[in-house]
Amino acid sequence: MKHALNITREQDFAAWYQAVISEADLAEESGVRGCMVIRPWGYGIWERIQKLLDAEIKATGHENCYFPIFIPLSYFEKEAEHVEGFAKEMAVVTHHRLKADGNGKLVPDPESKLEEPLVVRPTSETVIGTAFARWVQSWRDLPVLINQWANVVRWEMRTRMFLRTSEFLWQEGHTAHASADEAREETLKMLEVYRRFSEECLAVPVVAGEKPENERFPGAVATYSIEAMMQDGKALQAGTSHFLGTNFAKAQNIRFQNSAGEQELANTTSWGVSTRMIGGVIMVHGDDDGLRVPPVIAPYQVVIVPMLRDTDEDAAILDHCKALALELKALSAFGEPIRALVDGKSAKAKRWTWVKKGAPLIVEIGPRDISAGNVSLIRRDRLYDANGKLAGAAVSRGDFVAQAAALLVEIQDALHGEATARLHANIVRGVTDFAGLEQHFARGGKFPGWVEVQWSRPTGAGLEAVAERLKKLKLTIRNTPLAAAPADGTCVFSGEPAVERILIGRSY
Amino acid sequence: MKHALNITREQDFAAWYQAVISEADLAEESGVRGCMVIRPWGYGIWERIQKLLDAEIKATGHENCYFPIFIPLSYFEKEAEHVEGFAKEMAVVTHHRLKADGNGKLVPDPESKLEEPLVVRPTSETVIGTAFARWVQSWRDLPVLINQWANVVRWEMRTRMFLRTSEFLWQEGHTAHASADEAREETLKMLEVYRRFSEECLAVPVVAGEKPENERFPGAVATYSIEAMMQDGKALQAGTSHFLGTNFAKAQNIRFQNSAGEQELANTTSWGVSTRMIGGVIMVHGDDDGLRVPPVIAPYQVVIVPMLRDTDEDAAILDHCKALALELKALSAFGEPIRALVDGKSAKAKRWTWVKKGAPLIVEIGPRDISAGNVSLIRRDRLYDANGKLAGAAVSRGDFVAQAAALLVEIQDALHGEATARLHANIVRGVTDFAGLEQHFARGGKFPGWVEVQWSRPTGAGLEAVAERLKKLKLTIRNTPLAAAPADGTCVFSGEPAVERILIGRSY
Ligand SMILES: [Zn+2]
Ligand SMILES: [Zn+2]
Repeated sequence: MKHALNITREQDFAAWYQAVISEADLAEESGVRGCMVIRPWGYGIWERIQKLLDAEIKATGHENCYFPIFIPLSYFEKEAEHVEGFAKEMAVVTHHRLKADGNGKLVPDPESKLEEPLVVRPTSETVIGTAFARWVQSWRDLPVLINQWANVVRWEMRTRMFLRTSEFLWQEGHTAHASADEAREETLKMLEVYRRFSEECLAVPVVAGEKPENERFPGAVATYSIEAMMQDGKALQAGTSHFLGTNFAKAQNIRFQNSAGEQELANTTSWGVSTRMIGGVIMVHGDDDGLRVPPVIAPYQVVIVPMLRDTDEDAAILDHCKALALELKALSAFGEPIRALVDGKSAKAKRWTWVKKGAPLIVEIGPRDISAGNVSLIRRDRLYDANGKLAGAAVSRGDFVAQAAALLVEIQDALHGEATARLHANIVRGVTDFAGLEQHFARGGKFPGWVEVQWSRPTGAGLEAVAERLKKLKLTIRNTPLAAAPADGTCVFSGEPAVERILIGRSY
Repeated sequence: MKHALNITREQDFAAWYQAVISEADLAEESGVRGCMVIRPWGYGIWERIQKLLDAEIKATGHENCYFPIFIPLSYFEKEAEHVEGFAKEMAVVTHHRLKADGNGKLVPDPESKLEEPLVVRPTSETVIGTAFARWVQSWRDLPVLINQWANVVRWEMRTRMFLRTSEFLWQEGHTAHASADEAREETLKMLEVYRRFSEECLAVPVVAGEKPENERFPGAVATYSIEAMMQDGKALQAGTSHFLGTNFAKAQNIRFQNSAGEQELANTTSWGVSTRMIGGVIMVHGDDDGLRVPPVIAPYQVVIVPMLRDTDEDAAILDHCKALALELKALSAFGEPIRALVDGKSAKAKRWTWVKKGAPLIVEIGPRDISAGNVSLIRRDRLYDANGKLAGAAVSRGDFVAQAAALLVEIQDALHGEATARLHANIVRGVTDFAGLEQHFARGGKFPGWVEVQWSRPTGAGLEAVAERLKKLKLTIRNTPLAAAPADGTCVFSGEPAVERILIGRSY
């Protein structure tokens, strides 16, 4: 079967991923090291993610703020003291002026050297914690529940669009609480917000659980994640939520007077998801014809393509299409007006343009359709019929309008169902010793999925040894699923009695 | 009359401005040089601005994208060659790693020095122009109509919250067109979008017009602005739209094949508004009791304050308030659901908290109100009665709900009307020579407003001389209003025949 992309997932998954990004006009290299340009279709998906997730973040009582992009170097000195595993790859601003060097070039003006260099935020714990220390005096000021949508920068040597870029877009929630229990509850509440958002909006099934100690955010008491399975069987950590205990409060001096009049340290949390999620959507829902965007996050859910031929009839066809779009926009799907677009612009091959972009419903209308009262309908989730032919179907215009919202729901469910079946089919259980684990991932098969095993949850050096053994197989522990069955066997690493179940796999 | 702020506009307008920002919890110093923290109430206003303006930007055919925050130094070398007045105060990233210096301090790791420094974007013409050069090949690719919402950095020595900060938030539109006429039309179309948005959403009346040559964006063929009058009579440039001709296309090589098969340079535009608008809202609508937020951009339009007293009755009062909020949220004002908040959190002085923040309607409800079926209503735009007493009025709950949407519209109109009357009252006409101009601004009166004069529109050295004369009086030409009457007199600077009318004033 011939496909729209000139490479398939089976042939080369990494190259296929890049092809989807390029052919679906999601993003492109910017010419600036490690940074990408997010193009309208990709950014439109991000806008949908922002809109829907922001509503959930607000519904759970958080308010949005904005904190500076620059963080003085000294803030990191405090953190470096307190936090093991402090990361150092950051963009550092050292000058505030350019000057001509006399040879037609510009150079940082030596006279503009900053006394204290500024770091471009890699995350905002330090600067937000400093604000919390100002805002919080009494137990009455707690909890503080804030969020920001922002760009952050982490210097990356090897980058991959959406998955790992030096600059990326994200939201970071930061909260402070009077008690550890309340902060833990917040951490899990936001994890659940992410889980539900991923399942319901992205149609990406995930496993929510706790990361092992060696994969915690530096300084966190506990880190939780949602892990999604890509079509190559690798895991993508698609969101994290951290319980920070009093570690950051100590470093940043977030103290309050409790109701008994005593000074206490606040307990804090942080949690975030990023444009990385779009990488996950591509690798979960894409196929050999490009992207398939779940209708809930599709910038346009129905794309109407008038079959124009530079004749006098064109105007009438265009009018007909615009009228149809208006009719659709007056309808509601998923509790919002249907997003319909008439693509009257680009000249040719529009059908395949929208197939590759992954618009859920593509409707073509030519003169013959109009006289027959039909539209020609393509469902992106069922592109080919049993004979491998493009499954475009003539549908009466009235029927199409009547069914459009239900069709979108059906497509959303189909994508979620397909991905969920794949996730379940590719988590292997019953591996009881390390040799079994080794065998599973050695057995070939390009896309080996994940293995759920039992372990004794070692810490410190014991855990390091486990991580080393896994690393040789290019494996990591993804998380301890919150919903896993209780342990009833022995540790796959040590043979000791197990205390819980964990997921192991390769990852992005 | 006693007011909520301890300083009045009359006493010290600049100090009053800072007091409003602080007392209304809009923003605060961040501890990071030149950067502010935008707090929830301030950021909530920005979110409203974003939402409403974004809809207009999309309705006029533009799509949102995201471009890198970093711009390689060499991009500015190209621009510096082409653009007179090239600005050089920018944040320059020179290193990508921190390391410990052995004395407990962190320093930029010398080994991580970048071969080519990166500039934190002060505006994105260069990097977006480079993308346009990739995207545009043929006349069929035009127009390209894009916008981005982003943070930008311009190193500022003297900063003032919202008005001039090193980092600020904005939207920047960038477009490329096949003809100069179409690009000029775009420039004016977006100026009109800004004008209407300012009048209708911010309730800030503005004068739209063309900036004089010496105030153009470097490299622009024409720059247009909307100018708002603050309560101290100064002008605030609240938005700009630039027709760039082929100047940037030349520097960035944005060329296309026209329908005749010839290579042509594209004509480009750019246009932007920023968080500066919030400074304008404060200085136009604030009073000696704090901010007054126009209902269209108020994060909450109705704030309900339960009069809690730590008694058993509290729960019933809170429930009553929540029910009222739900009822209000089901209603619509300005085509959107009413935004109502029950402030059950902070303990005391809530009335004055919300007066200072400028919530349009403040509703207090205590046990007596509930039994009488009333609410106690404060309109933020009419805070005091004729006797200088707080004009809280008991209104039946039913009447209040029935009138809430209309009241919000009334407040929006009242704020706009008040500001419009002030603008009109403070533009002086009839000054026909420079002495008259000098006299007007020397006559004392702290808040001298603007003067509309006629001039001969000199260019080059002639214009420089005019600018110098004005500078001595701390004056600038604001713009040539598009709606001004035609010239019919002589130039206030030269006595020559005038060609148009301009506005002159002090400015932020
Ligand atoms: Zn195939
Ligand atoms: Zn007064």
